[in-house]
Amino acid sequence: MAELTITALAGMPQVQPGHDLAGLLIAALAARGMVPRPHDVLVVTSKVVAKAEGRYRDLATIVPSARAEAIARRLDKDPRLVEAVLCEAAEVLRCGPNVLIVVTRHGLIMANAGIDQSNLDPEDQGRRVLLLPEAPDRSAQGIKARLDAHFGVDIGVIVSDSVGRPWRLGTVGLAIGAAGVPALWDRRGESDLAGRPLQATEVAFADAVASMAVLAMGEAAEGRPAALVRGLAWRAPARPAAALLRPRAEDLFR
Amino acid sequence: MAELTITALAGMPQVQPGHDLAGLLIAALAARGMVPRPHDVLVVTSKVVAKAEGRYRDLATIVPSARAEAIARRLDKDPRLVEAVLCEAAEVLRCGPNVLIVVTRHGLIMANAGIDQSNLDPEDQGRRVLLLPEAPDRSAQGIKARLDAHFGVDIGVIVSDSVGRPWRLGTVGLAIGAAGVPALWDRRGESDLAGRPLQATEVAFADAVASMAVLAMGEAAEGRPAALVRGLAWRAPARPAAALLRPRAEDLFR
Repeated sequence: MAELTITALAGMPQVQPGHDLAGLLIAALAARGMVPRPHDVLVVTSKVVAKAEGRYRDLATIVPSARAEAIARRLDKDPRLVEAVLCEAAEVLRCGPNVLIVVTRHGLIMANAGIDQSNLDPEDQGRRVLLLPEAPDRSAQGIKARLDAHFGVDIGVIVSDSVGRPWRLGTVGLAIGAAGVPALWDRRGESDLAGRPLQATEVAFADAVASMAVLAMGEAAEGRPAALVRGLAWRAPARPAAALLRPRAEDLFR
Repeated sequence: MAELTITALAGMPQVQPGHDLAGLLIAALAARGMVPRPHDVLVVTSKVVAKAEGRYRDLATIVPSARAEAIARRLDKDPRLVEAVLCEAAEVLRCGPNVLIVVTRHGLIMANAGIDQSNLDPEDQGRRVLLLPEAPDRSAQGIKARLDAHFGVDIGVIVSDSVGRPWRLGTVGLAIGAAGVPALWDRRGESDLAGRPLQATEVAFADAVASMAVLAMGEAAEGRPAALVRGLAWRAPARPAAALLRPRAEDLFR
């Protein structure tokens, strides 16, 4: 893959629950005259996936548990938001002043279970929150199936999110869902052109693609919720984004 | 930045200590007919930077300390390699079966202080190890100064490395050195086109660029030690890669 191009797709309408997201993506590609080719990868932000899937929770309908109330007091957050986070969490990892980091039911480690009120349109602020897609690998698979059928190709789809990290400042994009790509690419045992073993290991392929695509898409308010990445090459079977989750027993930093 | 392109530069000669790396990069760009433009970012792997800077340590000259001997026994590693790691380390974070994770003197958190024998050419195996560049931000600045002068532009330079991460499997590229780019891009307070505040935060700009460039460059044995990224846009002052280091006191996961 000597040359890659990443084209952010602008001009998509605001996505609402029940919208046909795959159809909107197909239209956005068509509007730019882009016909996906094999090994193209379409990166879609989790925000629009979650919106299309109607993954909202109305704050008014949430009754905080005693635990949520206690955490909310410690964090100075809305107890209904904390309750929404706990509902999405398999485990609370860190809970301190202004920070609530959990393992989500998907196995992702995220502040506020990926629920971010800053993810919301202004009219939703304080009224409802947007959760992550329920099963992002399945979401990616569904979008891929529609695009493959429409364009008659076998493309990759990545559902991206933007996260903070231990050790380093600043957010980066990563892949929370993937279909048709080796989200984790095991390069051990490969050889280079001279036949020497490639001194490589497992590459977080989908995370690397997502991080650059998220940069190209920019922030939510910039209205580019998807990007087509062209020029990637891989020799490995497709694996979902779940393959990127480090098993707890092998994780030295929880 | 609606469209980005990433072009990996092949055909560079093997870099040796004392080589003029900036000159080799200029030649590699010229060979492809590429003339850097403002806001272009050249990503260079730390491996070739370190080689040009002669950052080798001969194993034969290393006398392991008692501490290195003890750790080496626990890890089943060469005590001279462990001694080299400890010399580069400000602090040992984790030391267990087959894993030695340290904070380097730069403040980076890396297995084996970024010293990897798999980083070596076959003829060096077991004979010497390659350290990280001594001051990667300064290395980036030096390369930038030469390229800026040669091409008469103001470009960005990132020195990349490939690392493992907590929580997630697979390696990703990140920026250990940067010049002429906002390695950490503070987008708080910006507005979108409609004048609403951008619901954004600090973006790990240089890490995102590095991760995709590392993917485009491929593994060391594939012989593409640099990549030119075109189409990036930023409105922020340049900051070195050191700005990406999360201060220890703010880090919940050490």
